[in-house]
Amino acid sequence: MEVLKTLEDLQNIRKNIKGSVGFVPTMGALHNGHISLIKKAREENDIVIVSIFVNPTQFLPGEDLDAYPRKDEADKKICSMCKVDYIFMPEISTMYTKEEVLVKAPNNSYVLEGKTRPGHFDGVLQVVLKLFNLVQPTNAYFGKKDAQQLSLIQQMVRNFFLPINIIPCEIVREEDGLAMSSRNVYLSAQQRSDAVLISKSLYMAGNLISKGERNSQVVKNKIYDVMSPLDVEYVAVVDRNFNEIETIEPKNTIILVVARFGNTRLLDNFWL
Amino acid sequence: MEVLKTLEDLQNIRKNIKGSVGFVPTMGALHNGHISLIKKAREENDIVIVSIFVNPTQFLPGEDLDAYPRKDEADKKICSMCKVDYIFMPEISTMYTKEEVLVKAPNNSYVLEGKTRPGHFDGVLQVVLKLFNLVQPTNAYFGKKDAQQLSLIQQMVRNFFLPINIIPCEIVREEDGLAMSSRNVYLSAQQRSDAVLISKSLYMAGNLISKGERNSQVVKNKIYDVMSPLDVEYVAVVDRNFNEIETIEPKNTIILVVARFGNTRLLDNFWL
Repeated sequence: MEVLKTLEDLQNIRKNIKGSVGFVPTMGALHNGHISLIKKAREENDIVIVSIFVNPTQFLPGEDLDAYPRKDEADKKICSMCKVDYIFMPEISTMYTKEEVLVKAPNNSYVLEGKTRPGHFDGVLQVVLKLFNLVQPTNAYFGKKDAQQLSLIQQMVRNFFLPINIIPCEIVREEDGLAMSSRNVYLSAQQRSDAVLISKSLYMAGNLISKGERNSQVVKNKIYDVMSPLDVEYVAVVDRNFNEIETIEPKNTIILVVARFGNTRLLDNFWL
Repeated sequence: MEVLKTLEDLQNIRKNIKGSVGFVPTMGALHNGHISLIKKAREENDIVIVSIFVNPTQFLPGEDLDAYPRKDEADKKICSMCKVDYIFMPEISTMYTKEEVLVKAPNNSYVLEGKTRPGHFDGVLQVVLKLFNLVQPTNAYFGKKDAQQLSLIQQMVRNFFLPINIIPCEIVREEDGLAMSSRNVYLSAQQRSDAVLISKSLYMAGNLISKGERNSQVVKNKIYDVMSPLDVEYVAVVDRNFNEIETIEPKNTIILVVARFGNTRLLDNFWL
């Protein structure tokens, strides 16, 4: 495994790769969710490249850019154990200059996460586009936990005609059901214990739907019930284009929940 | 020569090209300026692809999108004579969907053309990025007449790490000096005759500078003098980053002029 820091290093390596390239872009602090993406990339490609870059443009002023967990040495060990071929680990000054041509998320994406964090997705799309152009992957792997992000990246690939396959990957959970996230380390013991209600509420919703319930409001009420001890930011029932829907359509519905624990926002979701 | 209409046609052709690809993106109504780009592309590449697409997103409301000259059959003949390999001539619905991930020109680009036509460069960069990703050219050819556009495309290539060489090409002029433009057809006989003052003013400016003048204001005054019969929109002396400069620096200066003839804006410039 080789750690690449500069554009030139990455570009020189990329030029000489003949086979398929699997790419897993990350902000580091790798957990089992990331590992599942890397393992899938390893199975499906000749070469696997992981990027580790805490991207400043996707953090809003006042968010946790400085506090975001950095675990470079542990991350390298994890990548090495997962038989990653190359880690790309650039400096901010390698990725950005002062004034830049920008990427802007579609006007209709300013809902849910796009509403709570206006500009967040612009930064995500900007860095993902840069990384895609550098790495030129055959396949790129993203977790379903960041559902709206995944959807917007898929849309960017379609809109910009990028010759890349986006591979959505299942959410990986702790034993009690909590969706894995690098931000789970921010939780106190009490918050960590309360957080189980997030996934539990989705599990109960799934149960209701499997018994035939199709009314979004009834399902949302159930989720709010289960999460009532928590500070719930939103519960939404949307189609694959992130339009809210009143009637649940099997195979075209995502149920999204966000709960706050102090400054920490935890996302979870369930795809039908 | 083959005319390609769909994404699939272009993508299938592109997959099987092994050598270098020279790309000339145009809005059609080809004149000697375009022909010079195509000839250069022909000399320098194995395969030459020209796109003809009147891009709606770079026209502002009230601009000449509908009136913009369309000359598809003449354009095809010109391309054929210039030994172009493929013309890509998509429909609007092939290039765009309803809600899109957008490209946004840098915040400091809202000067000169960016100020007169806010949003214009967003549309230019959006379509050029789409075309670049489809055509995947080795070299892409742009005229210096649209100097700010050229500079922003070069910046997009740097910012997004696109593996493409941008080749700036000299302005081609009519015998009396008027810079070639598809919009010259809008001019009345009187306007066409008056328009010679635009290039003449730049020629006089060049003369002054070659005699040692370095004061931007003195040079601008000379240009305004020569163009005094015209409706001059702006005269600007800028560096290669389009920052206005008070002192002319050889090898890092562009002198830009825009004059209005009714609704028609004619651009010209001179690079030191």
